[in-house]
Amino acid sequence: MRVIFNEELKAVADDLDHMAQDVRRAINASGEALLNADLDAAQNVIDGDIKIDALEANIINQCVSLLAKQNPVATDLRVVVSSMRLASTFERMGDLARHIAEAARRTYPLSPVPDEAKDLFAQMRDFLDKTADRTVSMLADRDADVAEQIILDDDILDNLHHQTFSMVLDDSWTGTKQQLIDVVLIGRFMERLGDHAVSAARRVTFIVSGFDPSKAPKRDEGTDID
Amino acid sequence: MRVIFNEELKAVADDLDHMAQDVRRAINASGEALLNADLDAAQNVIDGDIKIDALEANIINQCVSLLAKQNPVATDLRVVVSSMRLASTFERMGDLARHIAEAARRTYPLSPVPDEAKDLFAQMRDFLDKTADRTVSMLADRDADVAEQIILDDDILDNLHHQTFSMVLDDSWTGTKQQLIDVVLIGRFMERLGDHAVSAARRVTFIVSGFDPSKAPKRDEGTDID
Repeated sequence: MRVIFNEELKAVADDLDHMAQDVRRAINASGEALLNADLDAAQNVIDGDIKIDALEANIINQCVSLLAKQNPVATDLRVVVSSMRLASTFERMGDLARHIAEAARRTYPLSPVPDEAKDLFAQMRDFLDKTADRTVSMLADRDADVAEQIILDDDILDNLHHQTFSMVLDDSWTGTKQQLIDVVLIGRFMERLGDHAVSAARRVTFIVSGFDPSKAPKRDEGTDID
Repeated sequence: MRVIFNEELKAVADDLDHMAQDVRRAINASGEALLNADLDAAQNVIDGDIKIDALEANIINQCVSLLAKQNPVATDLRVVVSSMRLASTFERMGDLARHIAEAARRTYPLSPVPDEAKDLFAQMRDFLDKTADRTVSMLADRDADVAEQIILDDDILDNLHHQTFSMVLDDSWTGTKQQLIDVVLIGRFMERLGDHAVSAARRVTFIVSGFDPSKAPKRDEGTDID
C-alpha cells in the first residue's frame, strides 16, 4: 500500500510541477504580450489556459482517488489536501495571465497601456517573472526558504501596484479613459497574481514544515484600492 | 462509525450554512455602504470578515479530521472535498464584500461612485442581494434547482458589469478619475462575487447530483475587459 501511495503522490507532485511550469510560461508570455505587442504570445496564453484547467481537474481527481483508496493520515493527508488547494491556486493564476493576454490581443498592435505607463508595468512584469521562477523552484525542491522569499517580497509588488493609481491620478497623465481602465484592471490582475503566489508559498511552507499558514497574517488585506 | 461520521458531517454543513449567511450579510451591508453612505454597515463588513475567515479555517480543519478518522469514500468523500472548496469560495466572497466596504469607508460621507453611476450599481447590488439569498437557500436545502438559477442568471450581472465600462467611456461621463477607478474596481469586485456564487452553485450541483461541474463550460471566460 505504502509503495502505491508514494507512487501516486509522486504523480500528483509531477502534475503540480507541470502546472507551475505552465503558469510560469503563461506569466512570461502575458508580459511579452502586454509590453512588446506579441500577438502570438497572447494567443498562446489564451489557448494554453485550457491545459492548465485540465491539469487542475486531473490533480483533484487523483487526490480524491488517493483519499478514497489509501486513507492517508497526518503528513500524507496534509500533503494531499494542500495539493488540491495548490492546484486551484495555479488554475486561478492561469486565468489572470489569460486576462492580461486578452487585453493585449484586444488592443494589438498597440499595447493596452500607454507609453507613459510602460516602465511601471515592466517593473511589475519583471517582478512576476521572478516570482514565477521562484514558484517553480519552490515546488520542485519543496524549498521553504524560497517560499519565504515569495511571501516577504510581495510588498514590492503591492507598492508598484499602488503606483499605478498615483500615476493615473496625477495631472501629468495623458492617457485615454480606456487606457486608464486597462491600467487599473491589468494592475489588479498582476497584483492578484502576486497574491496567489503568496498563497501557494504558504501552502508549500505548510507541506514542508507543518506550520499552518492560516494562522499567519493574510495578504490581500484591504490595500487594493486605498 | 457511521453515526459519528454523519454527526461530524452535519457540523460541517452547519458551519457552511453559517458562512453563507455571514457572506449574505456582508454582501447586503456592502451594498448599503456603497449606495447609502452607511458607515456602520461598512465597518461591520470589514470587522466581520475575520469571522468568515475563521469559519473557513474551522471547516477545513473539520474536513481534514473527517478524512483522517473516517476514510469516507464515494458520495461521502465527494461531499467532504466539495465542502472544503465551498468554504474557500465563501471566504473569497467575504474578501470581495470587504473591498467594497473599504472603498465606501474611504470616501465617506460621499459614495465612491458618482450619482450618474448609482442606478447601475443599484441594479448590481439588487442582483447580488438576490444571489446571496439564493446561495443561502441552495445550501440549506441542497437545492440543485436554485443552484441552476444562480448559474443561468449570471449573464445578467455580466451584462450590467459591461455597462459600467460603456458608462465611463461615454462622452457624457462627468466623474473624476478617482471615481472612474472606483467604478472599474468595484464593478470588478461585484462581478467576481457573482462568479464565486456560480462556482458555489456548481459545487452544490455536484454534491446533490454527482454531475461534475468541471466538465461544464466555465464562467469568467474572457469577458472581463473586452
